Amino acid sequence: MRVKDIGEFGLIDRLMTGQALSPGVVVPAGDDAAVVEITPGCRVLYTCDCMVESVHFLPTAKGRDVGYKLMASNISDIAAMGGIPRYAVVNLVTPAETEVAWLEAVYEGMRECSQQYSVAIVGGDTSRGPAVTISVSLIGEVEPNRELLRSGAQVGDLVCVTGALGGSAAGLQVVLGRVSSKHPAADFVLSKHYRPQPRVREGLALAALNCRCANDISDGLASEAREIATSSGVGVELIAEDIPIREEVRAIAAECGIDPLEWALCGGEDYELVFTVPPESIVAVQEALPCVKVVGAVTQGCGVHLRRGELLQPVARAYTHFG
Amino acid sequence: MRVKDIGEFGLIDRLMTGQALSPGVVVPAGDDAAVVEITPGCRVLYTCDCMVESVHFLPTAKGRDVGYKLMASNISDIAAMGGIPRYAVVNLVTPAETEVAWLEAVYEGMRECSQQYSVAIVGGDTSRGPAVTISVSLIGEVEPNRELLRSGAQVGDLVCVTGALGGSAAGLQVVLGRVSSKHPAADFVLSKHYRPQPRVREGLALAALNCRCANDISDGLASEAREIATSSGVGVELIAEDIPIREEVRAIAAECGIDPLEWALCGGEDYELVFTVPPESIVAVQEALPCVKVVGAVTQGCGVHLRRGELLQPVARAYTHFG
Repeated sequence: MRVKDIGEFGLIDRLMTGQALSPGVVVPAGDDAAVVEITPGCRVLYTCDCMVESVHFLPTAKGRDVGYKLMASNISDIAAMGGIPRYAVVNLVTPAETEVAWLEAVYEGMRECSQQYSVAIVGGDTSRGPAVTISVSLIGEVEPNRELLRSGAQVGDLVCVTGALGGSAAGLQVVLGRVSSKHPAADFVLSKHYRPQPRVREGLALAALNCRCANDISDGLASEAREIATSSGVGVELIAEDIPIREEVRAIAAECGIDPLEWALCGGEDYELVFTVPPESIVAVQEALPCVKVVGAVTQGCGVHLRRGELLQPVARAYTHFG
Repeated sequence: MRVKDIGEFGLIDRLMTGQALSPGVVVPAGDDAAVVEITPGCRVLYTCDCMVESVHFLPTAKGRDVGYKLMASNISDIAAMGGIPRYAVVNLVTPAETEVAWLEAVYEGMRECSQQYSVAIVGGDTSRGPAVTISVSLIGEVEPNRELLRSGAQVGDLVCVTGALGGSAAGLQVVLGRVSSKHPAADFVLSKHYRPQPRVREGLALAALNCRCANDISDGLASEAREIATSSGVGVELIAEDIPIREEVRAIAAECGIDPLEWALCGGEDYELVFTVPPESIVAVQEALPCVKVVGAVTQGCGVHLRRGELLQPVARAYTHFG
């Protein structure tokens, strides 16, 4: 069945079934706008993210994986602000020739991820277009003055991450067939690539522990650290040997003849958090969040530098669109 | 200058300049998510809408017009709920070859419209893709239990519109060159096509006057009335001669040899409101809003029928994507 066989309304009916009515949803999808209730006194976080066929995913990708990851990437933006993700709307553009089953799988993937994080999909819009393009916008709540901002880093802070990096880039090598899917580490890195776990619980814990600066790692640690440095008017020094990289990722990198640090710095889509914390608070942070690793420090100056043994070098920029 | 010449970040810098910091915006565009403050006790309305090159606008369209209309269509959804539009995020997908000046004009158009309605653009996302695709999502406020819902129509209610219909479809004839741009009515219908005025003030007034049912006319009166009929479990009877159509629209229709009623019913993009009101309240509504015209009544049964003299006929469906 193709989109043209069931038309716009048939498509919407199919995509929006299975969405349970969630607490706080006063009027769900189906009217001009959804009505949602936000806990009084709370500020609203508001973000959006988009995936385009042949740019963010291959036409052969499983719909469920595409949907899961798109929702995860939005939720990760709310996590990186120290907030609780709540409500999403979805803008779908698709050629009429697209298989409806594939689009349904995208929505199943979005729902799988959104339910895991208690997010309700409350509406959307559907249009014709030359390539499948799915935009998700997401609102969340945050306690006033507890936001984790890019501009919150202070000279002397430690720079930390919430977990190991490079897994998604390693998974991409398997997706692209550069490493066999029978490699013993393949399943692990594929799950990192397809099922990133946004750090909502960790973001909330950091906000409660008086951290004030975080970014989610969607474009690689180098790029995210650079955003923090620029916004905060500071420099960031990363220590190569302290950047956590899993054994499975190292094994895939060895297979490809690539330095796995390259993936950690520039690979992107790991959706861990990079954040800064005053040295006196690191013990409390690591007690609350054992996953946290110190990977560097906030310095005077500007830009991001990498220390590798005796060598201190500026870190080049990561992936950008149109670059 | 093309997008590929300035890259993703250069593009974002250019598109986001000129956005004044608005009241309630705690953290503007530039972090993982914007932080906005919603008046405590208010519910949040949440909608999105999208435009795709060659589907919603011609590649030759002026960017400023495209941006204005896209923002207006989103604001109209909030108006149709009886709410106040507040904050928007914008997802932009574009080929690298697109002229930056054209995209800047799109954002100028979005800002022109959003400033007119006190909406702040607080963030967005930018990606590469095969056709320009712009998704706007918009949140608004509404007083609890004052929402204008599609499901609020009652048998015996009058069906009304906030203004004359068919102007946008008439304007499209000039855009497509089917009617000369020198036609005396051309400027009027072009402004209806390019600069629709969402009925925010009217939606708020209706909500305050205890109206409970409205829809904005984005796909033609027939389609919007059908949505109300279906959601409310009622029928709608429209009276052909009472549907307001401006002289300028009749003149363009005569030039095309088309019945202008066709445009009013199925033309779409007029962004007036269609709403229902108990007969005892119509005087108060028309005193507050002189633009309001009664165009029919809510009946038992289902679907939308059109009375034309003695003849009562079911009304066919309007435009749908993939249809």
